[in-house]
Amino acid sequence: MTILGVDCGSRVTGYGVIEARDSSCRLVDYGVVRPPGGAPLAARLLFIHDALRDVIRNYAPEAAVFESIFHAANAQSALKLGHARGVSVLAAAEAAVPVFEYTALQVKSAVTGYGRAEKAQVQRMVQSILELAEAPAPFDASDALAVAICHAQSRRYAEATAAP
Amino acid sequence: MTILGVDCGSRVTGYGVIEARDSSCRLVDYGVVRPPGGAPLAARLLFIHDALRDVIRNYAPEAAVFESIFHAANAQSALKLGHARGVSVLAAAEAAVPVFEYTALQVKSAVTGYGRAEKAQVQRMVQSILELAEAPAPFDASDALAVAICHAQSRRYAEATAAP
Repeated sequence: MTILGVDCGSRVTGYGVIEARDSSCRLVDYGVVRPPGGAPLAARLLFIHDALRDVIRNYAPEAAVFESIFHAANAQSALKLGHARGVSVLAAAEAAVPVFEYTALQVKSAVTGYGRAEKAQVQRMVQSILELAEAPAPFDASDALAVAICHAQSRRYAEATAAP
Repeated sequence: MTILGVDCGSRVTGYGVIEARDSSCRLVDYGVVRPPGGAPLAARLLFIHDALRDVIRNYAPEAAVFESIFHAANAQSALKLGHARGVSVLAAAEAAVPVFEYTALQVKSAVTGYGRAEKAQVQRMVQSILELAEAPAPFDASDALAVAICHAQSRRYAEATAAP
């Protein structure tokens, strides 16, 4: 199954696409969406939405996975993050791609075995799990891949425990 | 000129459409967008986006006006508000409708002459300015109309002061 992970930020939104099969995950693509700095809000949101819409059209993922947000530095940054996250979730909804959410604790635990892992540790484990020659960068992209891997593993676990 | 005002909330998004001419404003339509309670995030955002897209298609406004947000009760509510606001601004951007923002102080001052007016005062002044038989309700809708009126007045003021 093809899984899209998305890591929304107020300035940069990372995405990662993986193919999950049996016990392994394979990298399909990853990258970041970075609206022109200084562009008006409307233009920035259109940029993010259309870029993710294109990723979804290209890879037709069967799941779009986001990190749940519980904390933010302040209301202003939460609002900005919400803008980007809203149009990203919308892009999935418009394509009828089911949306899933996991907490940072779940994502880090799934990928590194440790819920408080640093971004660099997550990045190295993503590189190892996907057997990549280089670490996926920037962190926005490696975090997005981690979210996708978390979904692949939680599905696998759910399927394994559900088996007769 | 036709002006769309939008008042985004995490649960209810109000909208108001007015026709501004010379020194007067006329009501065109108003209402609220209320996604089904308990629906998943993706479905709620699609609901809000598509409802505002339809309002924009129906009335082809020349401006979409939003209240700037500076305060929120907490990061969670700011995030939820951001989701709704993001897909609302996107609906305007997709239709190439210019987006404008005013602070609550500017909106209340424009409509009531007092920057700290209560919602009920704003509602009564909106009723008076638009010469309506009944007060527009709920507050989500009267606030949306107030935002639209604020833009009409600020345009008028800008045009008046710019005149030779």
